[in-house]
Amino acid sequence: MPGLVTESETKIVFLIADGLGGLPQNGKSGKTELESARTPNLDALVKGSICGLIEPVGPGITPGSGPAHLALFGYDPIRYQIGRGALSAAGVGFYQGRGDIAARINFATIDNDGKVIDRRAGRLPTEKTKELCSILERIKLPGVEVLLRAEKEHRAVVIFRGDGLSDKITDSDPQKEGLPILEVKAIQPESIKTASLVNKFIQESLLLLKSQTPANALLLRGFANYPDLPKIDKLYKLKAAAIASYPMYKGIARLIGMKALDGCENIEDEFKILKENFKDYDFFFVHFKKTDSAGEDGDFDRKVRAIEELDGYIPQLMDLKPDVVVVTGDHSTPSVLKSHSWHPVPFLLYSRYCRPDDISTFSESACRKGSLGTFPAVNIMPLALANGLRLKKFGA
Amino acid sequence: MPGLVTESETKIVFLIADGLGGLPQNGKSGKTELESARTPNLDALVKGSICGLIEPVGPGITPGSGPAHLALFGYDPIRYQIGRGALSAAGVGFYQGRGDIAARINFATIDNDGKVIDRRAGRLPTEKTKELCSILERIKLPGVEVLLRAEKEHRAVVIFRGDGLSDKITDSDPQKEGLPILEVKAIQPESIKTASLVNKFIQESLLLLKSQTPANALLLRGFANYPDLPKIDKLYKLKAAAIASYPMYKGIARLIGMKALDGCENIEDEFKILKENFKDYDFFFVHFKKTDSAGEDGDFDRKVRAIEELDGYIPQLMDLKPDVVVVTGDHSTPSVLKSHSWHPVPFLLYSRYCRPDDISTFSESACRKGSLGTFPAVNIMPLALANGLRLKKFGA
Repeated sequence: MPGLVTESETKIVFLIADGLGGLPQNGKSGKTELESARTPNLDALVKGSICGLIEPVGPGITPGSGPAHLALFGYDPIRYQIGRGALSAAGVGFYQGRGDIAARINFATIDNDGKVIDRRAGRLPTEKTKELCSILERIKLPGVEVLLRAEKEHRAVVIFRGDGLSDKITDSDPQKEGLPILEVKAIQPESIKTASLVNKFIQESLLLLKSQTPANALLLRGFANYPDLPKIDKLYKLKAAAIASYPMYKGIARLIGMKALDGCENIEDEFKILKENFKDYDFFFVHFKKTDSAGEDGDFDRKVRAIEELDGYIPQLMDLKPDVVVVTGDHSTPSVLKSHSWHPVPFLLYSRYCRPDDISTFSESACRKGSLGTFPAVNIMPLALANGLRLKKFGA
Repeated sequence: MPGLVTESETKIVFLIADGLGGLPQNGKSGKTELESARTPNLDALVKGSICGLIEPVGPGITPGSGPAHLALFGYDPIRYQIGRGALSAAGVGFYQGRGDIAARINFATIDNDGKVIDRRAGRLPTEKTKELCSILERIKLPGVEVLLRAEKEHRAVVIFRGDGLSDKITDSDPQKEGLPILEVKAIQPESIKTASLVNKFIQESLLLLKSQTPANALLLRGFANYPDLPKIDKLYKLKAAAIASYPMYKGIARLIGMKALDGCENIEDEFKILKENFKDYDFFFVHFKKTDSAGEDGDFDRKVRAIEELDGYIPQLMDLKPDVVVVTGDHSTPSVLKSHSWHPVPFLLYSRYCRPDDISTFSESACRKGSLGTFPAVNIMPLALANGLRLKKFGA
């Protein structure tokens, strides 16, 4: 693939409605959220598009947001796995160098016996989390620098910087309340030193947080090296921008070399920023979160409304005259399951040269009749580049 | 696969309409070239066939003729890559032994500063190219034999024969006019000797061509070893014949062990030769070029007429009572793009035992609803052999 990529003036937009795919409500109309939504603009777009259903990782596999997005951008999600710590660090724009180990922190409440009684310390305000982070940066470990950065509410990230550290260690987070903080253990002999340093960090943190309330402890999970992913400009000769209001999606985008554009709090901002920056990039990843949040909350009707809201922005997108438009989700989040799921996700690709299918509504049941059938999400990127006339001929 | 192949009396015919797949004309009927053509005979054939759309190399990948044809014959086009020089040598029936390095020649015109001003020397007549080839065969290189053979017009092939030669060297052809002839460079240390010999050949050629006009120079590209491909008789126990009027397609066929039958100037000849040789071979590759040429020229209507012309020969083909007939293209060449493209290619396979789809027209939009869906071209050969009752059961 990289040998075939050529530069072009064409513009490619990926509009990703998180958790877009769904399921019918039990005993109701038999229609999914997308099929229940009124989507005149997506239905118009689909008439000039090729369609299908994408499988982010593989049949039956429910993906996390990391692998699901990597697949959309053409990265094999089995080969490239991003640890939770690295994803969190990238999400808050916290620099992680090669050799640095990142981990996700939950500030938590423990009782007098050391048992975790609240894994989120009552969803601590972000300001308090920031304060605790500065306190903990006082911790000195032999030969290792400790850096902390607050995320949202009770969430934070820690980076351990020093020589010879390893991410092959277990979590301290017991994942359940009523259990004590776990001792961190080496998974392989090379990690014994790191495990012992992290356990020392945990001990020191308990001393420093002792008088704090309600957050008198921290839980660590997802120790991860910097994931050295090939960058999108090298792979595809694309100057790429990410437009997302949630840190994690910006983080994934940054890890593959996209510029995460700031200032988006909601979908209205996102389309405003798309328009403002349209001439400056070749590729745009626009992320819409509400479909997933509604699905996770089990709120069928709110997910329907979120889809209708997104549909309302399609004319603004098409006014920019992009050469290639992809509309899909990273995975399904059916509201009846209240979680990510394994179901293939409706997909459309619009371009002047796509040879459109004869499909007139954008839905799970219509897309499965599209010419692309059910296909791996990693195939999207070559299709988008081809339709953007950005791939040379293979072979003589 | 090879372990399952068995001999049989059945006859298999692949009718390959080069560049068959297309796109609708902008702002016109919304029909592709094939959909616009009147094809009563193909439409009758499709009623007894299974259908689909083939992907020669992969989603979004635009194939050259070499990889596209290899895929049709069941060779993984990524694994087996044929260099331009070897393809040209095989095309003109120029023997290339193991260890011989072949390259494609363009006779060209350079100015007094050594800059290329015409990469085709005014499309030199073939006779003149033959004359220049004999002149250049006088060149003596230490320990290396130099052999030349004219192709059509300004095109020729050179073979360097000697010990320890390597094809890992760069082209001398700058690919653009206004630039000087490039020095050939070694891509790996083992190629330094070859690069220096080839540069010596270029210097000598400039001396010998100095007084010639308009072809006072040559450009070399696509240095290639003999591509040692498994032969079709070994792989499939098929005695195979190629019926093609263009040298390159004969060349590809020869490289996989088909007999290229001579004497075809056009499609009428091709079907005559098919009939004459029908009893002598098991497998026939019949190549129709006009669909691709019209597409490359951007002539939608001429491509429509070419398809209609081909359709007129289907009764002659069916009169021979072949057991398996495949009709497809090697790739798409939409006239709106004036080039090969990545679009999947309409495909039908007719046989007594195929379990026909309920499809009644041969077109892109009908084929995509066929039972084969969109599928890799390398799957065609096993399907054809199976329908020719030439594959044994796998396993107990």
